[in-house]
Amino acid sequence: MASEKLTEISQHPSPSEDAGADVADYLLGSDLSKLRGWVEARSASFLRSADAGERSPIRRVREKFRSCEVPDTAMALDDYLSLLDQDVLPHCSSLASPRYLGHMTSPIPGFLPELGRLVQTLNQNVVKMETSGSLTFVERQVLGMLHKETYGFDTAFYDRRVQDRDSTLGLFASGGTIANLTALRAAKQRASVHAGGGARMAVIGSELMHYSFAKGADLMGLELRRVPVDEQNRMLPAALEREIEACEAEGVTVAALIAIAGTTEFGSVDPLASICRLGQARNIHVHVDAAWGGGFLLSPRNRHILAGIELADTVTIDGHKQLMVPLGCGMLFFRDPEVSKTIMHHAPYAVRPNSEDQGRFTLEGTRPATAIYVHAALHLIGKSVYDALFSASLERTRIMARHIEGMPEFELTSRPDMNILTYRYIPEAMRGTTPGPADNHRISRFNVALQRAQRDKGDSFVSRTFRPVSRHGDEPLALLRAVLLNPRTTEDDILFLLRDQVGIARELENSPAFHE
Amino acid sequence: MASEKLTEISQHPSPSEDAGADVADYLLGSDLSKLRGWVEARSASFLRSADAGERSPIRRVREKFRSCEVPDTAMALDDYLSLLDQDVLPHCSSLASPRYLGHMTSPIPGFLPELGRLVQTLNQNVVKMETSGSLTFVERQVLGMLHKETYGFDTAFYDRRVQDRDSTLGLFASGGTIANLTALRAAKQRASVHAGGGARMAVIGSELMHYSFAKGADLMGLELRRVPVDEQNRMLPAALEREIEACEAEGVTVAALIAIAGTTEFGSVDPLASICRLGQARNIHVHVDAAWGGGFLLSPRNRHILAGIELADTVTIDGHKQLMVPLGCGMLFFRDPEVSKTIMHHAPYAVRPNSEDQGRFTLEGTRPATAIYVHAALHLIGKSVYDALFSASLERTRIMARHIEGMPEFELTSRPDMNILTYRYIPEAMRGTTPGPADNHRISRFNVALQRAQRDKGDSFVSRTFRPVSRHGDEPLALLRAVLLNPRTTEDDILFLLRDQVGIARELENSPAFHE
Repeated sequence: MASEKLTEISQHPSPSEDAGADVADYLLGSDLSKLRGWVEARSASFLRSADAGERSPIRRVREKFRSCEVPDTAMALDDYLSLLDQDVLPHCSSLASPRYLGHMTSPIPGFLPELGRLVQTLNQNVVKMETSGSLTFVERQVLGMLHKETYGFDTAFYDRRVQDRDSTLGLFASGGTIANLTALRAAKQRASVHAGGGARMAVIGSELMHYSFAKGADLMGLELRRVPVDEQNRMLPAALEREIEACEAEGVTVAALIAIAGTTEFGSVDPLASICRLGQARNIHVHVDAAWGGGFLLSPRNRHILAGIELADTVTIDGHKQLMVPLGCGMLFFRDPEVSKTIMHHAPYAVRPNSEDQGRFTLEGTRPATAIYVHAALHLIGKSVYDALFSASLERTRIMARHIEGMPEFELTSRPDMNILTYRYIPEAMRGTTPGPADNHRISRFNVALQRAQRDKGDSFVSRTFRPVSRHGDEPLALLRAVLLNPRTTEDDILFLLRDQVGIARELENSPAFHE
Repeated sequence: MASEKLTEISQHPSPSEDAGADVADYLLGSDLSKLRGWVEARSASFLRSADAGERSPIRRVREKFRSCEVPDTAMALDDYLSLLDQDVLPHCSSLASPRYLGHMTSPIPGFLPELGRLVQTLNQNVVKMETSGSLTFVERQVLGMLHKETYGFDTAFYDRRVQDRDSTLGLFASGGTIANLTALRAAKQRASVHAGGGARMAVIGSELMHYSFAKGADLMGLELRRVPVDEQNRMLPAALEREIEACEAEGVTVAALIAIAGTTEFGSVDPLASICRLGQARNIHVHVDAAWGGGFLLSPRNRHILAGIELADTVTIDGHKQLMVPLGCGMLFFRDPEVSKTIMHHAPYAVRPNSEDQGRFTLEGTRPATAIYVHAALHLIGKSVYDALFSASLERTRIMARHIEGMPEFELTSRPDMNILTYRYIPEAMRGTTPGPADNHRISRFNVALQRAQRDKGDSFVSRTFRPVSRHGDEPLALLRAVLLNPRTTEDDILFLLRDQVGIARELENSPAFHE
């Protein structure tokens, strides 16, 4: 990739001259062995790193990315890789570290980025058969496989439906947000049949609904109503029933009930069966947001956590969370594939009504063939390893909860249904008594400072959230949030993280700012 | 990856035992050299192939993807790769063939899938700083670079805005559809300030508007009004003005005017400056959908095609179309970054209002760091090579148009503004006269059959669409559509494709079905 040559090339635009061929060769024919070695080394060092965070002050990193000039002449590859080495890679989040327990991303199995190179080279566009060929069928097969894990219909059902061109068992989306939006769209269509298009409509879920529902409700002109959760952070069906009745009394049509199978903040699971039965009895669409928890369906020993999901009208599952595939693998499933027909779109040049095009069903248009990642993961990991993986994650969560409960410095603030837990640090002066509102406010400020200091120190990481904890009343409290997803995290890592926090907290407690 | 071992592993779930470590090693520590060699060979053979299509009857391919069983035990890697070799790869679309001129995807420069492996290994989530670190700044820098190419404000503007945490110059989305939806959302917010939330609102664009606007209008309860195009497939500003006045007379608020910079079907460019001035005069949001054409901004010799785009309130550009990066790189730009504040969202555990998180502005939540592909392309290709590339594509398009006009078998049905053209085959018996409606209907049926037969033969490929051609009246006609994007396509490939079509057409003309 000699940049000298490219200046010459750009003088000769015609494809019938040599220069056109030179451009093509430059773009498509370069020797990539050097780049490959560099990628290999950087990938390995990222995966090996035990650091969990960011050491450089973010302000200093930001300054490196101010220039808005597109280079006239191509940069030499070496120079570009140096730029990545100096300014980008050292300041990425260390999601692969076994001591980074903060968010819903984990290191992914090495075979997936390898396949990713092929997926990107093939560059198939699954909006349409003509641009994706067999990948359209792969996508439908993967959706069929996970539909079966979710709903468990018989073989005859899947044989008839999995490749039926008139409907679909589900669809891929860039993420859970677009999947949830699409579910709301289907629910609104269904409700409109009875209520008419102009009716006031509401969506009801717990106060822990993902913010994608707020986005969707806002876009679609639906009211979003939130009902309380119990002390385990699970929706109260009685409160849901009251809210449905309130809607009826106000002349508001309830378009959908949302049940959560793994809340983002606590990993708690709503009573799925009760909520689904309530929806069925009243002919209201029930959507289960299992973006986080859906993967547990692949764990025979643990799928009971999701009991009742098979009654939902639609279900969202994110492959890129618990199935450990790269980002960009949201999925939506329809219990009754006929429902997919209510959200069909087509265009004269692209997706056609009588085709096999999956683009007829998706809110998105052009999409990459991310289904291949889920296909590969299901085949190369298999249910028994997923089972071991989920069991180990739950065990890790229990171990962490036990350690938190055993340490006087911490208060466990949620009992985990899945592999997420929350807790907070209690400054020494406040231990042993029940904190009042002013104390809790102070403890919250302390935990925000603690989480920031831990992130900046960079040896371990948890995230934080801001939510009420029932035994402390209705005021939101700052909570530390651990997501136990990384298969490499050991008990030692967990202890390291907790002790790291205690150490940082003691320093904070001794600082003058704490005593102001 | 011995599957025997995995069955054992799954018996021992605890992470404190060896088995937990075994699962981690299996998933994260496998030797990937064999897979890497396989990916390398398959990528190279895909890029080398001159075939343009699908030879196996689609029905037979579909049958291979019926099983909905998730394997209990992991499949051996060799077996899985055989599956891909036998059932998947031979039936992909040959988008890299220089004789595949059908859709808006092309082979992408080899360095991008290599970097893709690193991007997927890092698995950074740009919804939030805490999960993406420097990649958030990279994303904002790339948006700044392309904002500058679009709007061309001065250095002081970019220096102040590019990394300003309170607003954004643009955002990344999975594709043009989500970018266009987001533009509609911003436009609706602006119109609601004057009209009130409950007002009837419309979006006006030409009849060639992308179907994402129909999706967006449907979601958001906006009326979609389509105005006619001229014989060059460009919107008529006079017709737009009449439609705005009709809306006013009906008490409908016009929320947005849509101008297209590169229609999907013809590559035609609406009169951007006139439409933008109309919007400015009436205080209506103007959105330019430059998903296809926006890349031309990087071509100094050809960017005049987009003159006026700098007056638009918002602009959509797809990196994965003309900028040659992998699928999944839609972008939206705001002329005035203050507009981005009107579509802000946040959530307690994720994106926070006073953070640097790009997730505050996006309809999507979790997103991969696709910005790195555009960043790498802008640096490693550079403006001079993009200039050569776009000039060569336009030259190729002119060459193809000249050949079509020079062959009695074909009728050129659109004069290209960009690198897309349409034409149709005229069966011998119908040449030399002006076809009436019945003739046109017959010619359309013939061209549909021709496109299908060419696709099935698999030596070359164009797509088809169904649109009126002004000199033939208002009835839609089936048209062949060529997209000239592949830098490897030569004049010989173009001639090969046209002669291939003539050969197939003659066979069809001689078949008994034609004479029925």
